Amino acid sequence: MKTAKIGLLGFGNVGGGTYNILTDNKSIIEERIGVSPEVVKILARSKGKKRLVEAPESIITCDPDEILNNEDIDIVVEMLGGIEPATSFMLQAMKNGKHVVSANKAAIAANYEELVNTAKENNVEFLFEASVAGGIPVLTAINNALQANKVVEVMGILNGTTNYILTKMTEEGLNYYDVLKDAQEKGFAEADPTADVEGIDAANKLSILIALCFGKYVAPDDIPTTGISQITEDDIKQAAAEGAKIKLIGQAVLTQDGEVEYSVQPLRVPATHPLAGVNNEFNAVYITGDKVGELMFYGRGAGPLPTGSAVCGDILSIMKSKF
Amino acid sequence: MKTAKIGLLGFGNVGGGTYNILTDNKSIIEERIGVSPEVVKILARSKGKKRLVEAPESIITCDPDEILNNEDIDIVVEMLGGIEPATSFMLQAMKNGKHVVSANKAAIAANYEELVNTAKENNVEFLFEASVAGGIPVLTAINNALQANKVVEVMGILNGTTNYILTKMTEEGLNYYDVLKDAQEKGFAEADPTADVEGIDAANKLSILIALCFGKYVAPDDIPTTGISQITEDDIKQAAAEGAKIKLIGQAVLTQDGEVEYSVQPLRVPATHPLAGVNNEFNAVYITGDKVGELMFYGRGAGPLPTGSAVCGDILSIMKSKF
Repeated sequence: MKTAKIGLLGFGNVGGGTYNILTDNKSIIEERIGVSPEVVKILARSKGKKRLVEAPESIITCDPDEILNNEDIDIVVEMLGGIEPATSFMLQAMKNGKHVVSANKAAIAANYEELVNTAKENNVEFLFEASVAGGIPVLTAINNALQANKVVEVMGILNGTTNYILTKMTEEGLNYYDVLKDAQEKGFAEADPTADVEGIDAANKLSILIALCFGKYVAPDDIPTTGISQITEDDIKQAAAEGAKIKLIGQAVLTQDGEVEYSVQPLRVPATHPLAGVNNEFNAVYITGDKVGELMFYGRGAGPLPTGSAVCGDILSIMKSKF
Repeated sequence: MKTAKIGLLGFGNVGGGTYNILTDNKSIIEERIGVSPEVVKILARSKGKKRLVEAPESIITCDPDEILNNEDIDIVVEMLGGIEPATSFMLQAMKNGKHVVSANKAAIAANYEELVNTAKENNVEFLFEASVAGGIPVLTAINNALQANKVVEVMGILNGTTNYILTKMTEEGLNYYDVLKDAQEKGFAEADPTADVEGIDAANKLSILIALCFGKYVAPDDIPTTGISQITEDDIKQAAAEGAKIKLIGQAVLTQDGEVEYSVQPLRVPATHPLAGVNNEFNAVYITGDKVGELMFYGRGAGPLPTGSAVCGDILSIMKSKF
């Protein structure tokens, strides 16, 4: 059986989840794809550290060049987070002829065109399913099954932290600050929650969705973005009185004259709309195609294994088509 | 630009929808895939008939051999419905080296192994996204993005007619026979509704889902199947009193000892479960993977354009990988 040699950049939550899946489900993958995935190197911050997911110490390195310039490696998987050095590492890997898989919405949204063009110029695959809505295979659907459609609208609950906060405010009548504090204590919100609660994370993901759905790049900074920190108990009650729920929605719509209008903002979603039933930390993307009509994709938008599942889906897609 | 030459078997609802999309969105498809789809022949029951979707009379034929034995044709798309002659036509096309796309759940569920094996032996693609849940790209997800997962459970609202009837019974407090009659008058239910209301259509789709999710073929006749014709207004009220909705659910679960248990039957779905919010003619498939956790795919399970969208997704996938 052929072997796909894989280098992982990052061994935190997503890196650990990806390594877990590739080892745990190795025999299933070999049987289904006919190619064996072998992780040959993992870039980590330090060696000899106790981790939740264990890997042989011999494949851990702190030197990115051992992956990026490693002639043995076919696929580089970037799970570092942040714009740099992640972007430079991906570009270097592509220039060295390696296929690249990434889970990094911030880097991809910031440098979408350079990354996609560099992949094309070097005739390598660049896939990033995990960067939008975690484990939900929505980018794969847009790029494949829905390709005969013109997308008319895409709307998403793209951030689990804010959806968790809004769900608790709605269901338990609590105020924003109390729920945020509780979420931070439970590990559902970060110590500095700005990127989540101010909609920045959702804007990164919407930028990627706009690029795939409408073939147009809009920088995250150019997306009008309002977070949820100003939402009050009264707002939630007033929405409920109108039979609606407040959700943080990233939305892009094709207008009659062919332009795309976009925003990230809290919206009142009618209780009868499928997005209204997406609660707690779950994400969902609601797409309208000119032919297929409305579709919704629902699932876990974060977490080591859901996100790792999406990363592995991309790795397997490359194993199928390129090995 | 390369051209993919396509023959359509059937020019009813789904055939018309597929032809509409391939002509209407031809330039989008050419731009995205880099291959031009050209429908060179369409098998119809009669020539010279007025149809909702118009095609040049010169490409309409009543002789299947003009497609099945046509050396010019690369992809045969089967949208005839029914087990025969559809199955024989698909097998003949494969043996003649043609890729096959089908929307025909009855034929595929009845002859799954022979069709899949014949495609393999002849080294042609056999794709059938439209056969389960219409426009929802759930088979593509199972076969691609979720391949690193072991599927633990699959549950689906797989029939739009029964979901429409149950929704109206629940929302309007009507009885089964009155709603069925109304649905028949509106064209949402067939004159002979047996295949829908007795769960036979859902069992065909569940058979296909079981094959893809668990790698195991179960004939539709071997799936314990109960329809909705015995559901009373009292059943619906009792479910509501328990905070649940009655839905016709096709379900397959992997047991602890590695067996698969399956059924099609009306079940009480808790109102908080995402499937409870799937109403009217909509379909949804809820999949649990060992790594990704719960996912739901929601959309239109029938209709010329949604089903045609799924057929075209398969055609484009073949155009991408084989041209």
